Amino acid sequence: MNEIKALVFDLYGTLYDVHSVAARCETCYPGRGREISAMWRQKQIEYTWLRSLMNDYCDFEKATEDALVYTCRYLKLELEASTQQLLCNEYLQLAPFPEVPAALRRMRTSGLPLAILSNGSRRSIHEVVSSSGLEAEFAHLISVDDVRVFKPHPSVYQLAERTLRLARAQILFVSSNAWDAAGARHYGYPVCWVNRASNCFEELGQQPDLVVDGIDTLARHLNDLQTSQS
Amino acid sequence: MNEIKALVFDLYGTLYDVHSVAARCETCYPGRGREISAMWRQKQIEYTWLRSLMNDYCDFEKATEDALVYTCRYLKLELEASTQQLLCNEYLQLAPFPEVPAALRRMRTSGLPLAILSNGSRRSIHEVVSSSGLEAEFAHLISVDDVRVFKPHPSVYQLAERTLRLARAQILFVSSNAWDAAGARHYGYPVCWVNRASNCFEELGQQPDLVVDGIDTLARHLNDLQTSQS
Repeated sequence: MNEIKALVFDLYGTLYDVHSVAARCETCYPGRGREISAMWRQKQIEYTWLRSLMNDYCDFEKATEDALVYTCRYLKLELEASTQQLLCNEYLQLAPFPEVPAALRRMRTSGLPLAILSNGSRRSIHEVVSSSGLEAEFAHLISVDDVRVFKPHPSVYQLAERTLRLARAQILFVSSNAWDAAGARHYGYPVCWVNRASNCFEELGQQPDLVVDGIDTLARHLNDLQTSQS
Repeated sequence: MNEIKALVFDLYGTLYDVHSVAARCETCYPGRGREISAMWRQKQIEYTWLRSLMNDYCDFEKATEDALVYTCRYLKLELEASTQQLLCNEYLQLAPFPEVPAALRRMRTSGLPLAILSNGSRRSIHEVVSSSGLEAEFAHLISVDDVRVFKPHPSVYQLAERTLRLARAQILFVSSNAWDAAGARHYGYPVCWVNRASNCFEELGQQPDLVVDGIDTLARHLNDLQTSQS
């Protein structure tokens, strides 16, 4: 942790709150919003894993659409084309978690380059980041589109190392998704797991180097580390 | 479907009922059996996908153990070593679905070689099949251990083709797990999806060639096909 020279963040669920999607689901399907969005998110992630394993990549928008179609079929809910588009568009306008903007600014101005490494397509990542006004915080927005496979495949994690031109040990990888944190740790990055909801870490033979309850806590931790070194 | 010369079956959930595990969970944790076994099974499958993607293979027994440990931590249930062993051993003594033994016999005696292609380790597959007395029905028991990656990776499906020395179009792949059926279909096998519980097929860009509600229905279907050809 002492030689960290850059930070690489996961996007969905780490910097941006995917469950803001639940509100829109609730508008379209009153009383079912939480159930739909939870199953949709689970299937979305499953489809990224399965497509990667089957060697049949599609982009994140397609996996997101397919997961919504499945969810509605499973729950026996009608899904009109306009509703499908409305709900999927919600993934392009996610809100950052409340502490994120100030915490990113603090870390960036302290001299650490920040990047995003996400399952999202290039277009999705740019749209989410720019619609939240956080573009200026990031030196790089890195999409799995470049390797056509999703996390936690090693090729994805390798993208960050190559883009930043730093050694693995110099990059702190930050994710709220325990399976993503485990994948990055196995690849060789020091890892910070953002555990906002007091969850359990996955049993995948890996442990995070640091656990925080939000990005602000991470920023304070890094500041303390810098202060103690100077 | 007309040129089928062999049948390859998935094991867990297809020929053998994994939810017989629920009864044992219920004995160990009264009132929680169904909840534990459902989450355990979901995590078990997730861990096979994640380990495969991370390129960090462990055998199916280890993934099963890890998934149980996670489930109990998540549900805040104590898991003693003896309970863990008892529950994991349950996966070695699964019961076949009621219609399976007679249906397998009927298909085998009609001249079709039968095989199992499973995520299980060699030891697990042999133990499950022999403890249920069905060894004589199978020409081959094929484990992912040989390629050290789990379904739906193409290397797994390739194992069946190589072992049976038949072309893909001559092998009917049979699974209850829609994601497994989709993986095999994408690889190039004709696929029969065993849909006992009237579920939805996964949205992975694939469709099964045949859908049945049990192995007996499949046996009848193949018999009708043979009769109409002779």
